[in-house]
Amino acid sequence: MKTMFWEDNQLKLINQTKLPDEVSYFNCLTYQDVILAIKTMIVRGAPAIGVAAAFGIALADLAGENLELAAQEIKNARPTAINLFWAVDRVMASNSPLDEAKEMYREDIETNMAIGKYGLTVIDENDTILTHCNAGALACVDYGTALGVIRAAHEKGKNINVICDETRPLGQGARLSIWEMQEENIPVKLIVDSAAGYLMQQGQIDKVIIGADRIAKGGVANKIGSLMVALAAKRFNVPFYVAAPKSTFDTKISIYDVEIEERNSEEVLYYGQCRITSEKTKVINPAFDIVPSDLITGIITENGIIKPL
Amino acid sequence: MKTMFWEDNQLKLINQTKLPDEVSYFNCLTYQDVILAIKTMIVRGAPAIGVAAAFGIALADLAGENLELAAQEIKNARPTAINLFWAVDRVMASNSPLDEAKEMYREDIETNMAIGKYGLTVIDENDTILTHCNAGALACVDYGTALGVIRAAHEKGKNINVICDETRPLGQGARLSIWEMQEENIPVKLIVDSAAGYLMQQGQIDKVIIGADRIAKGGVANKIGSLMVALAAKRFNVPFYVAAPKSTFDTKISIYDVEIEERNSEEVLYYGQCRITSEKTKVINPAFDIVPSDLITGIITENGIIKPL
Repeated sequence: MKTMFWEDNQLKLINQTKLPDEVSYFNCLTYQDVILAIKTMIVRGAPAIGVAAAFGIALADLAGENLELAAQEIKNARPTAINLFWAVDRVMASNSPLDEAKEMYREDIETNMAIGKYGLTVIDENDTILTHCNAGALACVDYGTALGVIRAAHEKGKNINVICDETRPLGQGARLSIWEMQEENIPVKLIVDSAAGYLMQQGQIDKVIIGADRIAKGGVANKIGSLMVALAAKRFNVPFYVAAPKSTFDTKISIYDVEIEERNSEEVLYYGQCRITSEKTKVINPAFDIVPSDLITGIITENGIIKPL
Repeated sequence: MKTMFWEDNQLKLINQTKLPDEVSYFNCLTYQDVILAIKTMIVRGAPAIGVAAAFGIALADLAGENLELAAQEIKNARPTAINLFWAVDRVMASNSPLDEAKEMYREDIETNMAIGKYGLTVIDENDTILTHCNAGALACVDYGTALGVIRAAHEKGKNINVICDETRPLGQGARLSIWEMQEENIPVKLIVDSAAGYLMQQGQIDKVIIGADRIAKGGVANKIGSLMVALAAKRFNVPFYVAAPKSTFDTKISIYDVEIEERNSEEVLYYGQCRITSEKTKVINPAFDIVPSDLITGIITENGIIKPL
């Protein structure tokens, strides 16, 4: 399942805000369309944002836009996932933005297959694996990072069970990861975010695998809630893995210097169309948190499993 | 604000499933009505369930029902909060169920005021206090346990801020605790459950206070998610308090022998009227978890602050 493809000089993105009820595409004709798609999370997931941004530069180039300006605007779309900046810089440094974007598209799939290959070595027969948010095919071009490891284990014939937490506020676990697993007939169950600790307390989870939005000195920035899952895993001795490509690494800075995006209140006050409390309620809505390195068993990359920075 | 009152030989309960959008009452004319109200969480919160159950026995008594049978049926309504069993046993041992229920109603308010009095000693000026679920007036007859401590600090003129987490699946934090704080003009903000760890990581939370459904040897059973909040509090050195009356204590057993209620899938698959993922999705929906004693700074009771069992 490809989450995006290039056709007729357009970038066509699965509209992830409509899943799982509706599989529809959002067509980006301009780089501004790509920015809108990133900001509104029509496309989300660090690797997917990166490749979409690369095609955004290609669209700007085809339209004869000021590329420096387009690059800056695209980089401003979201602050936390480094893949966005990495992808824009790489395409800008190339001779042909469209060719480079296509190359990155191809590489992304290859990278995820490699992550899956290394990752499946940590998955045992009959494991129940918890994942948070969606680090699946939908977060990449295809296959996925954390869910890529799960896919690889399933393809190898390992008997595994998956537990997805809901991932409030936007429900990427409930909507996207659950859907990906159901599409592949991998046994999966849904829990609320706050139930992960209890399941580990009860010995019902054998491994945790999540994705990453940035990996730097001291830890990993990932979807809000990753930290609390990691703390529970540490307490109950459940191995905790991060699966991410090298493009997610930002080796020069401390993870605590990464800007954590604060998103709008409506995401929390509403669930889909349903308002959950009074409109006047004040909200704090950080989109990411930081998992310190001491809570991470290993980082599964396309080059092998490594220790956190 | 009274969450329940006795009038015209009926137990009138604020219908907590309708809050905050609608303040309406559910009138129990029979003990079966009380059972329905407990099962469907029209009334919830360990102390409130206890007093409602006591009036249930009174209703059965007034109707000339078989009291032993009624007592057994009421006890079967929900398994985890011990206050339910305690209250039924106490009323059954009395000469006049109605008088005893009224006495327990009066005592509950007195108890919570005492919890507030002891609890406010741990609240400092300018504290930001996180609470999980609703251990407020709505969880009791009035005033509340965890929120009773917050009310007492506010009434003493302490400048405090409150953060309520949403408390999926039923949103008792978002719907009930937020509403109680807003009604009292206590500054309050809402977060998703999974953001509590991040706020502690950022040093934005000074204390945690939660309620309890049962306190036994080795820890406290409380609303699902309490454990993950407690683990984050431990990691970031945030004092973690449990506020609960003595009727919540079950000193003879291990907390790990308490039955943890598993509720229906629909609570997770829907938020209000909004379905959040496909209907066919399998769910695990435990209603409570266990906070081990080593994560608890102190238990605030009507007799003072004590160490966990």
